[in-house]
Amino acid sequence: MNDAEVGLPVVITMGDPAGIGPEIIVKAFMQEPDLTANCLVAGDVACMRRAAAWIAKGGLPWSVALVEGPLQRQGVPPGCLPVIQVTDVPSLPEMGKVSAAAGRMAAQSVLWATGAALREEVLAIVTAPLHKEALFAAKLPDAMCPGHTEMLQAQSARHLGLDLARLPVRMMLANDELRTVLVSIHMSLRHAIEAVTYESVLETIRITHQSLRWTLGRAPKMAVAGLNPHAGEAGLFGQEEIDIIEPAIRKAQSEGLNVSGPYPPDTVFMRARRRTGLLTEFDVVIAMYHDQGLIPVKYLGVEQGVNVTLGLPLIRTSPDHGTAFDIAGQAIADPSSLIAAIRMAKTMTMRRHPPGAPASA
Amino acid sequence: MNDAEVGLPVVITMGDPAGIGPEIIVKAFMQEPDLTANCLVAGDVACMRRAAAWIAKGGLPWSVALVEGPLQRQGVPPGCLPVIQVTDVPSLPEMGKVSAAAGRMAAQSVLWATGAALREEVLAIVTAPLHKEALFAAKLPDAMCPGHTEMLQAQSARHLGLDLARLPVRMMLANDELRTVLVSIHMSLRHAIEAVTYESVLETIRITHQSLRWTLGRAPKMAVAGLNPHAGEAGLFGQEEIDIIEPAIRKAQSEGLNVSGPYPPDTVFMRARRRTGLLTEFDVVIAMYHDQGLIPVKYLGVEQGVNVTLGLPLIRTSPDHGTAFDIAGQAIADPSSLIAAIRMAKTMTMRRHPPGAPASA
Repeated sequence: MNDAEVGLPVVITMGDPAGIGPEIIVKAFMQEPDLTANCLVAGDVACMRRAAAWIAKGGLPWSVALVEGPLQRQGVPPGCLPVIQVTDVPSLPEMGKVSAAAGRMAAQSVLWATGAALREEVLAIVTAPLHKEALFAAKLPDAMCPGHTEMLQAQSARHLGLDLARLPVRMMLANDELRTVLVSIHMSLRHAIEAVTYESVLETIRITHQSLRWTLGRAPKMAVAGLNPHAGEAGLFGQEEIDIIEPAIRKAQSEGLNVSGPYPPDTVFMRARRRTGLLTEFDVVIAMYHDQGLIPVKYLGVEQGVNVTLGLPLIRTSPDHGTAFDIAGQAIADPSSLIAAIRMAKTMTMRRHPPGAPASA
Repeated sequence: MNDAEVGLPVVITMGDPAGIGPEIIVKAFMQEPDLTANCLVAGDVACMRRAAAWIAKGGLPWSVALVEGPLQRQGVPPGCLPVIQVTDVPSLPEMGKVSAAAGRMAAQSVLWATGAALREEVLAIVTAPLHKEALFAAKLPDAMCPGHTEMLQAQSARHLGLDLARLPVRMMLANDELRTVLVSIHMSLRHAIEAVTYESVLETIRITHQSLRWTLGRAPKMAVAGLNPHAGEAGLFGQEEIDIIEPAIRKAQSEGLNVSGPYPPDTVFMRARRRTGLLTEFDVVIAMYHDQGLIPVKYLGVEQGVNVTLGLPLIRTSPDHGTAFDIAGQAIADPSSLIAAIRMAKTMTMRRHPPGAPASA
């Protein structure tokens, strides 16, 4: 990091305070003091104190400190959770319920964190889960979006003065075993097939290459899955591999990217997972649709899954689970995925801004 | 088993003798003498002896004995591999090459084994891999089929005097962690979506129920995966769950079957795999298309995968790999999947024909 970045924190958004966000954040700070030593929470001090009290179960709760701005993170002693107050809702929301108030607090946390990241006042954003219905109920003009990714995308595009279409993003799911980037996410399988175009596959390859350089510190070895069984078996079970996916791969190869495929979907994830010593055949698999990539990522258990939004002018990771309203407020939620998301964000930060390099590198 | 069945063998077909079939069969007998104590090979004695010699690497090869019929299996001593000569090709095929002669031997092995199973002269069939091009080149009138499954289906339908359409079959892939049955297999993803109909889903559920009773000795707990991400999220990402899959599940439930769903595809396989003690939430997942089911089954490695054809009037299992022409004849092929297939066939046999029950139970 350069001098200006020494002391800049990673910001964790509180998420919907009626869900498990505040609890897993407190647990992450308690369980991982070194990892969270430069982390800061954007949210509401009262909500975070309530969560700390639940986790203490009548004992002495973890201390929650109000800080005024990102640079004040440095003055907070170990054993203390720093929160910047970015919400304006005076009451504590009821746990496990969809409410406009909780949605507003979640949205304000994300909007503040995104702005801070775009102004380079924080190194990265880790987002605790929000609830889409509550977000919608809040009716905040800058947060009328289906979810986190769209909010981040819209705010980033405005900041850069770009049309939304000029800032394509992709979702990467990653755990210790496997990374996968999806060409499309939340649409029917019929529509997902239509979304497999030369442009979308090529764009996914390019975004993956660019983003994983930050994660790995080198150009990634990318595998592209086919769309059809056996990757179409030379056209016998579908033409998309021949007409769309292969040409996109060849174009990316001509740009110097380390990419190959299309591979039979039923074995490419297994190949990417398998290790020979520390080496894997591929660093990442580009999946043609939601379930093709998410079935293998989730197969071994979702606890360690991390969601990374690729293509943004900032680093954003999140745990791979929702608000879990059914168990919120009981202090039983597992912070593993959030901890993995913090670790991933910090790794990407270190790679993107290595010590001594300018922040815009 | 009843008295008539005591002494009936499980038959292993030789597969394409230019591939790894003969080698992995010899290795299975050598490594698993108890498991193979009632197994018999249908194929060619000379091919099997050649494989035994390769594996012996200049030492004393495993003994290969010619037997005249299934009941003669009993007279073969331990440490000896019994083969019934069912092929009429006088020469030894060259290894690793597609040939009509090798295809003919593979086809004759399967035709004989299927006939023996339909006549109840053997308890089950385990098929070593054949090569589809070689099978086609052989031009045997009764074996002009794309593969094993279609050969078994055609011969069984003839035996029962049924139209082929009246004998629907399904592929189950299973390993120690997961069982999945596929609504469709070798077709494009576009066509696979069209193949998800009320009738095909209901038929898959019924066939799975019927067949897994033999494997488990009780009614299976069946989970049905959705077709779309999040199982359509209440119609937001596709209508097939609401229009097709749910009605088929409800119909099957009304028939008393233990089936539920449709579940989000990205977590249902993980749920079926996860164990609480010896219990899993589901015994089997019904997958809507090839890769949905095969990605998770293969994710942990293909060595232990077993392919089971459901819906036939006989028990048939096979290893989950091909002829591996590239390594055939080197005595390095791994027999694990074949051994798992033999074990699965014997388990199904024991359940289907428990000691004392009539063979047609």
